[in-house]
Amino acid sequence: MVQGKNRAIVMHSQTKIDDAAVMPGGFKASGVHCGVKPSAPDLALISSDSPCESAGTFTTNRAAAACVHFCRSRLEAESARAIVVNSGNANACTGASGMRDTETMAQLAADALGVRAAEVFVSSTGPIGVPLPMDLIQAGVRDAAQSLSPGGGLDAATAILTTDTRPKHATAEVFVDDVAIRVTGIAKGSGMIHPNMATMLCYLLTDAAVDKANLQALLEKSVQQSFNRISVDGDQSTNDTVLLLGNGSAGNATLHAGHPAWDRFAGAVDAITKDLALRIVRDGEGATKLVSVQVSGAATPGDADRVARSVANSLLVKTSWAGNDPNWGRVLCATGYAGVPVQLEKIDISYDAVPAVIGGESAGTPAATLRDVVEQDEFTVAIQLHIGPGEAVVYACDTTENYVRINAEE
Amino acid sequence: MVQGKNRAIVMHSQTKIDDAAVMPGGFKASGVHCGVKPSAPDLALISSDSPCESAGTFTTNRAAAACVHFCRSRLEAESARAIVVNSGNANACTGASGMRDTETMAQLAADALGVRAAEVFVSSTGPIGVPLPMDLIQAGVRDAAQSLSPGGGLDAATAILTTDTRPKHATAEVFVDDVAIRVTGIAKGSGMIHPNMATMLCYLLTDAAVDKANLQALLEKSVQQSFNRISVDGDQSTNDTVLLLGNGSAGNATLHAGHPAWDRFAGAVDAITKDLALRIVRDGEGATKLVSVQVSGAATPGDADRVARSVANSLLVKTSWAGNDPNWGRVLCATGYAGVPVQLEKIDISYDAVPAVIGGESAGTPAATLRDVVEQDEFTVAIQLHIGPGEAVVYACDTTENYVRINAEE
Repeated sequence: MVQGKNRAIVMHSQTKIDDAAVMPGGFKASGVHCGVKPSAPDLALISSDSPCESAGTFTTNRAAAACVHFCRSRLEAESARAIVVNSGNANACTGASGMRDTETMAQLAADALGVRAAEVFVSSTGPIGVPLPMDLIQAGVRDAAQSLSPGGGLDAATAILTTDTRPKHATAEVFVDDVAIRVTGIAKGSGMIHPNMATMLCYLLTDAAVDKANLQALLEKSVQQSFNRISVDGDQSTNDTVLLLGNGSAGNATLHAGHPAWDRFAGAVDAITKDLALRIVRDGEGATKLVSVQVSGAATPGDADRVARSVANSLLVKTSWAGNDPNWGRVLCATGYAGVPVQLEKIDISYDAVPAVIGGESAGTPAATLRDVVEQDEFTVAIQLHIGPGEAVVYACDTTENYVRINAEE
Repeated sequence: MVQGKNRAIVMHSQTKIDDAAVMPGGFKASGVHCGVKPSAPDLALISSDSPCESAGTFTTNRAAAACVHFCRSRLEAESARAIVVNSGNANACTGASGMRDTETMAQLAADALGVRAAEVFVSSTGPIGVPLPMDLIQAGVRDAAQSLSPGGGLDAATAILTTDTRPKHATAEVFVDDVAIRVTGIAKGSGMIHPNMATMLCYLLTDAAVDKANLQALLEKSVQQSFNRISVDGDQSTNDTVLLLGNGSAGNATLHAGHPAWDRFAGAVDAITKDLALRIVRDGEGATKLVSVQVSGAATPGDADRVARSVANSLLVKTSWAGNDPNWGRVLCATGYAGVPVQLEKIDISYDAVPAVIGGESAGTPAATLRDVVEQDEFTVAIQLHIGPGEAVVYACDTTENYVRINAEE
């Protein structure tokens, strides 16, 4: 993991982001240990006092877990009231009985909270292919329901972790029609995306009243600029889930895309998702660095994205970062095989502001100068293709021996 | 690297393969140290007493090195006589002066051999972005020309290595019209494909007389079933080159695709390329295992190929192999995100003959039984999708902490 700087409180345009899991009005949360994992907290519950509008985005993996299919179908429901999550078992590739277990988990939470099962979302994260121990889950859901409190955000954020080394949470506040609105996110994920032990999960809660269709569009766009722009190892989990619940308890007039404060609200959501996404990369398995790969001058934004991902996912590039090696040759190479039009003799590459490559050749910068940049916890590799207007950025981490050690162990 | 079994002499259908770099008739080779590398041999020369037909395939990387552009243009020439190769410097991303250095290297070899520069192929492998030390190259080419001998195959195979731990060579003999024909290959590559220190190079030599157009088609097909089916780390070098030279010194009537012995000759070439490809995977940087990923039952062969590559390139799958972990969940997960139609509930996965997954769920095989398979130096992961007739295989290795160590060092 990266010992990040600027972790406490940062300003994203005009949105105040707080490094805390302060629940928005009308939400409660809890996290307990029920025994799916040997000792750490492994069951989280989030509940709203009143019905919520909901939105969600999920893994595109065709081997998606039962809980993903279940959550997708729940988005159609009229309202949502709760999210129940276990860590320590992904309940993926468990067939028809796995789907029944997910349904049972929703029913258990619904019973404990006095709501309908159709109003409960379910997530699971952990090893694949092992049946959920439903007796433990049953006791855990009961405990979690009894432990719910407005101050339980950190407990919930802790109970959803797997190989993460720390909980990930952030809260933003903005004003909408002079009403203070809170957007809170808790997330987990450290092997983006790592089916055996991890998965990317994020739960966004707001006390704003928001139009449901607009909420879904907002979430999809926000995920696109945050969780879909990070890479730890290029793998994609069977269980990845992002949910956004809004309960309207702040009392604002229902927000929609045409509202004067819409951009401010959307900005708060974007700030939280990006903040959490970068926390996930910083806490990448074995990671020691957060590297922004910025591509500009591509023929199209899509081309820029492919180049950025090609570089950010190159094992050779990521291992060179681990060695503090400003290896621009590997960056150039990964740019060349991205499968999009590039002209070698036009490519410039810089590390932070230091030029490494000009016109496809060494810029002549001393290796020690480039190494000073790469030795930092955070830096930017900027690739200018000089072909067109396409731009993209991907946030990546380095790949260390420790990553292999973590993933080679059962 | 994998301490391979079956390394000495194997039979590929009716072709006898010998683990030796025996030159075909009329070919000589040498390998010398000229100082591009601190102490190891770093300059190889291969020469034919008579003009050769030639064929070649090259990297599709758009940042291709000067020598790749040069070799592509040389394929148009009427005949070929020699190949000169340096290791220790890729002469890639070195601009116009790099192209001049490649041309000079060809001219030096031509002068030393008394042939035309247009008849000489050039390869370079090693770090990117550093100018070739042409004074050292000049002396090396002269030394290599003076050292040429029919028994110099091993020296040449040794002088092209970078991070490889051993030279890679094989010879096949077949009869064509009662004339004994030899096909010899030498290759290098251990970080398929690793721009800083490695690259995949292969030189195939035969004393058969072969029609040039048929030779090119044969090579392309042969590379497709060998070097294009292996994966060490999913990266692709700027310098990858495969050349096939036939000098006709065996005295056979010129072979063409309609000749009765064509399939036998093609089989010999295929046997050599596949043999060398597997040697490259076994010697993959830090690798301890050779794993065949076999996919069947896909909608199309292309779909099968995408699934096989998705699994073979998954860092999570490859690190689990390093840990002797029969982690079929990661295999299923990588199958799911390959981007082709699959139905989870139809997928079967087995390790060698041992079923791990049936119908998308655990087959119930004890983990220890699966672990016995994965602990071997070589095993097969077979994925049956039960959708259509498409099949493909990719040969992969595991990813170890040692891989990261090798690539994190400068």
